[in-house]
Amino acid sequence: MKFYDCRTAPSPRRVRIFAAEKGIELDTVQVDLASGEQFGDAFRALNPDCVVPVLQLDDGTLITEVLAICQYLEELHPEPALIGATAAERAKSVMWATKVEQQGLVAARDAFRNSAKGLKGHALTGATQYEQIPALAERGLQQLGEFLARLELQLSGNEYVAGSFYSIADITAMVLIDFSAWIKVGIPDNAQHIRRWYDAVSSRPSAAA
Amino acid sequence: MKFYDCRTAPSPRRVRIFAAEKGIELDTVQVDLASGEQFGDAFRALNPDCVVPVLQLDDGTLITEVLAICQYLEELHPEPALIGATAAERAKSVMWATKVEQQGLVAARDAFRNSAKGLKGHALTGATQYEQIPALAERGLQQLGEFLARLELQLSGNEYVAGSFYSIADITAMVLIDFSAWIKVGIPDNAQHIRRWYDAVSSRPSAAA
Repeated sequence: MKFYDCRTAPSPRRVRIFAAEKGIELDTVQVDLASGEQFGDAFRALNPDCVVPVLQLDDGTLITEVLAICQYLEELHPEPALIGATAAERAKSVMWATKVEQQGLVAARDAFRNSAKGLKGHALTGATQYEQIPALAERGLQQLGEFLARLELQLSGNEYVAGSFYSIADITAMVLIDFSAWIKVGIPDNAQHIRRWYDAVSSRPSAAA
Repeated sequence: MKFYDCRTAPSPRRVRIFAAEKGIELDTVQVDLASGEQFGDAFRALNPDCVVPVLQLDDGTLITEVLAICQYLEELHPEPALIGATAAERAKSVMWATKVEQQGLVAARDAFRNSAKGLKGHALTGATQYEQIPALAERGLQQLGEFLARLELQLSGNEYVAGSFYSIADITAMVLIDFSAWIKVGIPDNAQHIRRWYDAVSSRPSAAA
């Protein structure tokens, strides 16, 4: 198994933390996103979407998308369960990982990619040029603020994002908080439950992954 | 178990088709999106995101997000497997369902919600007003075209979207093709593999769900 990673990127970090929690050591290849290695022929043969992470199995099968990779690793190494230990827990952790990704990470990504000076023409990942849309950067910031309020509400009644158990939803949300700093968005001052939860999850050894 | 649905909406249709393939009869409640029932207090108590589908378990647990609901149904009724029969198949079907959703459905949704006259102020789902961004409608159309080319390439070498087996990825992609008609995007003339695949999947009895 080979893991295509980039140390500085939020998406593959979700897999690195997931693997670290399980004690899995991945045979890792760094892809140099800063120099555009993801747009080269060699990487495009692995993933035409030009993004990391990619997990290549020993038979050559290529798996992309964080949730698909994590579910595969969960099957190989079931303990500790990070996508829930029962059917209902699994549903809740996939549901919350999806919400954090589609509402939180997508909003932060919209805000970042549509405003960063170095990403002109790269408002979307992939090889096609997409111009930045300033109104979308602004909308991303608003949507991220809304989502953080939603997360605060969820954490006011639950120890972890998906309920009473640590899961892939916490990993995704912690990566969201850290990624939000790129666009100068921090944990809101009045979000005491996010603060309590973030202090707990970010002091786990896996957070350094 | 109770299933909150809307007959005309693409997202819950993915669950309806999934259930039909398994022969599961869901106890279904129709939510009247056209009249704004999703923004009322009763529905918001079920899902503060104000979207269908929602699956309510007998103990009151609420599951939202299509993939989470389908994975839960797959655990209850494993046969026929619609999220793969092996770990690698499961990874590939989740990976492709995610790609179709995040690249295809999101692009079509951007094109639709940012241009439809009836959706002014509702460029995003949920209770918060978001104004339409015309440039985003345009970008959605371009991105959808790119994704259909990617899908054609994938289907040129595979019988089904995730490989040699029918799966949730096919359900998601068929719903994408049907939803694209809302913004007057059809199967591209030169996409013979999408055409062959679409004819096959859309003639399954479940497609009527």
